[in-house]
Amino acid sequence: MLSQPYGSGNMTAMDLYESLTSQGELVRTLKTEKAVKADIDAAVKLLLKLKADYKQVTGQDYKAGCPPLESTVLEDTGPAAAVDGEDMVDPWNVSTTSAKGVDYDKLIVRFGSSKVDQELVDRIERVSGKKPHRFLRRGIFFSHRDMHQVLDAYEKNKSFYLYTGRGPSSEAMHVGHLIPFIFTKWLQDTFDIPLVIQLTDDEKYLWKDLSLEDCHRYAVENAKDIIACGFDVNKTFIFSDLDYMGASPDFYRNVVKIQKHVTFNQVKGIFGFGDSDCIGKIAFPAIQAAPSFSNSFPQIFKGRKDIQCLIPCAIDQDPYFRMTRDVAPRIGYPKPALLHSTFFPALQGAQTKMSASDANSSIFLTDTPKQIKNKVNKHAFSGGKDTIEEHRKYGGNPDVDVSFMYLTFFLEDDEQLDKIRQDYASGALLTGELKKRLIDTLQPMITAHQERRKQVTEEMVLKFMTPRPLDFNF
Amino acid sequence: MLSQPYGSGNMTAMDLYESLTSQGELVRTLKTEKAVKADIDAAVKLLLKLKADYKQVTGQDYKAGCPPLESTVLEDTGPAAAVDGEDMVDPWNVSTTSAKGVDYDKLIVRFGSSKVDQELVDRIERVSGKKPHRFLRRGIFFSHRDMHQVLDAYEKNKSFYLYTGRGPSSEAMHVGHLIPFIFTKWLQDTFDIPLVIQLTDDEKYLWKDLSLEDCHRYAVENAKDIIACGFDVNKTFIFSDLDYMGASPDFYRNVVKIQKHVTFNQVKGIFGFGDSDCIGKIAFPAIQAAPSFSNSFPQIFKGRKDIQCLIPCAIDQDPYFRMTRDVAPRIGYPKPALLHSTFFPALQGAQTKMSASDANSSIFLTDTPKQIKNKVNKHAFSGGKDTIEEHRKYGGNPDVDVSFMYLTFFLEDDEQLDKIRQDYASGALLTGELKKRLIDTLQPMITAHQERRKQVTEEMVLKFMTPRPLDFNF
Repeated sequence: MLSQPYGSGNMTAMDLYESLTSQGELVRTLKTEKAVKADIDAAVKLLLKLKADYKQVTGQDYKAGCPPLESTVLEDTGPAAAVDGEDMVDPWNVSTTSAKGVDYDKLIVRFGSSKVDQELVDRIERVSGKKPHRFLRRGIFFSHRDMHQVLDAYEKNKSFYLYTGRGPSSEAMHVGHLIPFIFTKWLQDTFDIPLVIQLTDDEKYLWKDLSLEDCHRYAVENAKDIIACGFDVNKTFIFSDLDYMGASPDFYRNVVKIQKHVTFNQVKGIFGFGDSDCIGKIAFPAIQAAPSFSNSFPQIFKGRKDIQCLIPCAIDQDPYFRMTRDVAPRIGYPKPALLHSTFFPALQGAQTKMSASDANSSIFLTDTPKQIKNKVNKHAFSGGKDTIEEHRKYGGNPDVDVSFMYLTFFLEDDEQLDKIRQDYASGALLTGELKKRLIDTLQPMITAHQERRKQVTEEMVLKFMTPRPLDFNF
Repeated sequence: MLSQPYGSGNMTAMDLYESLTSQGELVRTLKTEKAVKADIDAAVKLLLKLKADYKQVTGQDYKAGCPPLESTVLEDTGPAAAVDGEDMVDPWNVSTTSAKGVDYDKLIVRFGSSKVDQELVDRIERVSGKKPHRFLRRGIFFSHRDMHQVLDAYEKNKSFYLYTGRGPSSEAMHVGHLIPFIFTKWLQDTFDIPLVIQLTDDEKYLWKDLSLEDCHRYAVENAKDIIACGFDVNKTFIFSDLDYMGASPDFYRNVVKIQKHVTFNQVKGIFGFGDSDCIGKIAFPAIQAAPSFSNSFPQIFKGRKDIQCLIPCAIDQDPYFRMTRDVAPRIGYPKPALLHSTFFPALQGAQTKMSASDANSSIFLTDTPKQIKNKVNKHAFSGGKDTIEEHRKYGGNPDVDVSFMYLTFFLEDDEQLDKIRQDYASGALLTGELKKRLIDTLQPMITAHQERRKQVTEEMVLKFMTPRPLDFNF
């Protein structure tokens, strides 16, 4: 739960807009009714004060009849870590008391994003001519911003690029970390577009008790796992912030531009930063924002600043990009579009994300088939009944069963998955049998990943991580 | 005057240290006297709270008997813009109501620096074997930090490097801007050491209503005036932050290291930043700090991080370097030493610094001999009497006379300067004659500068501004 009263006391842009509207009416009334001058003056003074506050909060002048745009109501989108019922979601913490996990429909309302509905999934299929990825078919990428705009443009032969990332806090990556990369690879293959992948080693240094050298080493090690997902080296640029910031004046220029247009008040409201936080944390959001703008990569986009960016990421990263979308029009750039995924549950249950620091909470990409089998059998939270008899009689609950959840992520065949759900719910499928289905799915998947990772040479890493032109014709 | 209560409500490291010492004694007394458990617990709880606060403020654990070092009492060094009597000095504002200018002895006490006394001037002469620069002989570089340590090491053949800089807020530089560069060139020639010059175009973009492109262009134009001061290209590296940040991963790594070790509370206390300031301003002090560490320039110092830095600068820049000196030991680097200059007075009087935005407050480096003559005659504040008769009878006051002040900066000959002072004070020298002496000094100096600046080619600028090894043997 939260220890700080995030964003308390801030007037939102909409609050200010409404106060301004009322105050404007008051001033007009006072003038019409020829009130005493001191009263009019006081009312006008307050009006001007409110206008100044409005401009500070929204970055724009108040105009009667024009309520603040979604893009400008930065402080209205609320803190990242808003507490909703029992769910808590911010870039550093995810927790809920529900075994089914976070209530994602509520998150969509709270964050002001849009649901990935059947219409959008069908449209992606129509536009791309490819069967939608299982993550789309099954609501794993459940929320978006501006996807229809991306597709409108794509239909008119205006292409876009992909941006995703990872915070390299250790060498160890678990299967949950692969979700954005598996999906991003599918988007890259489906739309044939360039991709940039940011490794925020600077962020990890600022937040964790780690040395710069370790953070950078983790970035390079993580890059190998990312490359093993099968990205096309001719269309993909992977970068460490510690390297790329010092290798691209254009990237730094965008960082400074963003930093000029975001106040401490704003990052306090969005991320819950406080006065005792270091200035590196306070300034960092601009560094995660900058890759959303195509001219941060002149070697790829030849200096163009108008190429639309699409960011596939877990929903907890959205606060960064709400901020980015707020800033974009004020510095003359298009807003990035987003596709948000749900969280990948810990073996112990959907109440929290997997943690790289608890070996038993996760299936790691380095686990042996035996470790996978043991972890699933020992630690995967079960929705089954206590005895076989009860299970046969009442059936299990797939909605809280972690093995079943994992299968929704990794079992490609929709019919098989549906049959497993039905059989488990009816009691025909026992927990041990369900776990075996998951083990049989994970073991070859992880082994294949390990095989591909072994093939990743230092030269390949170097090539992926070298700023260079990509295959790209817009 | 100040509109914000800078740093109010903060306990300094020394306050905390003293509270901790008392509280520790209280706890010991309570325990010895077998006080009731609740009282002891309460006292211990406060002790632990104070220890946590102490660690937050100083970055170090409290140790009984070890008061906080000068280096750690960041919040104790006070705000940059402390008001002392009528003087106000911070990196963005300097003002006083005294016609003699800021009281520099009081500033030394307030900032906790040391006076450049005759002993130090004599020692510099002894160590370097050169006559001290007139800026040292005349108390223009009046304050320092750790100069004796620099000279101790130099005597043992441990060399150092120079770092100074400029914020390029316009193309126009005035003679006051030359002071640190004239002196730095003398130091470079005298000690035969490398020099780095930072042009903070990013800072100007963050603080002013200017585009990135303009700030960078001003940086390059200003570099030409700096080069015209006669620096040795084989020993001097001039850099724009916007360029160098994007060209040196090592520089960025140091920036991030510093940013991790400075809190918002600290920059609030030092620079008076507030919640509505943009995150770029809040993070910027780390960028001005980073060149103080030799491994920010691996191309020059071959990765060594232990080379001592000496920073000649105007006293208003000291807050940046108090912060830098606080951080240095915590990230394993030597503290930079400093030499502080007084301010160069405006033509209208010593109450303020010259301003590049008021053409009549300054002699610009682009002024013609005629403009110089007119400006001095029309605008230079005079310490003379109202009539020739009175002047002859009572004499003038050189201490408030701007023409005389300028001569102390630019007239090399001590005896001539002393004679002018005496003659002006006695009434033998009239104001018009004094002004003529200044005009005769400035005109050839500015003309010569303009001649040298004309010789500065784009190729030379490029060479000075290219990261490269310098002539350097430590």
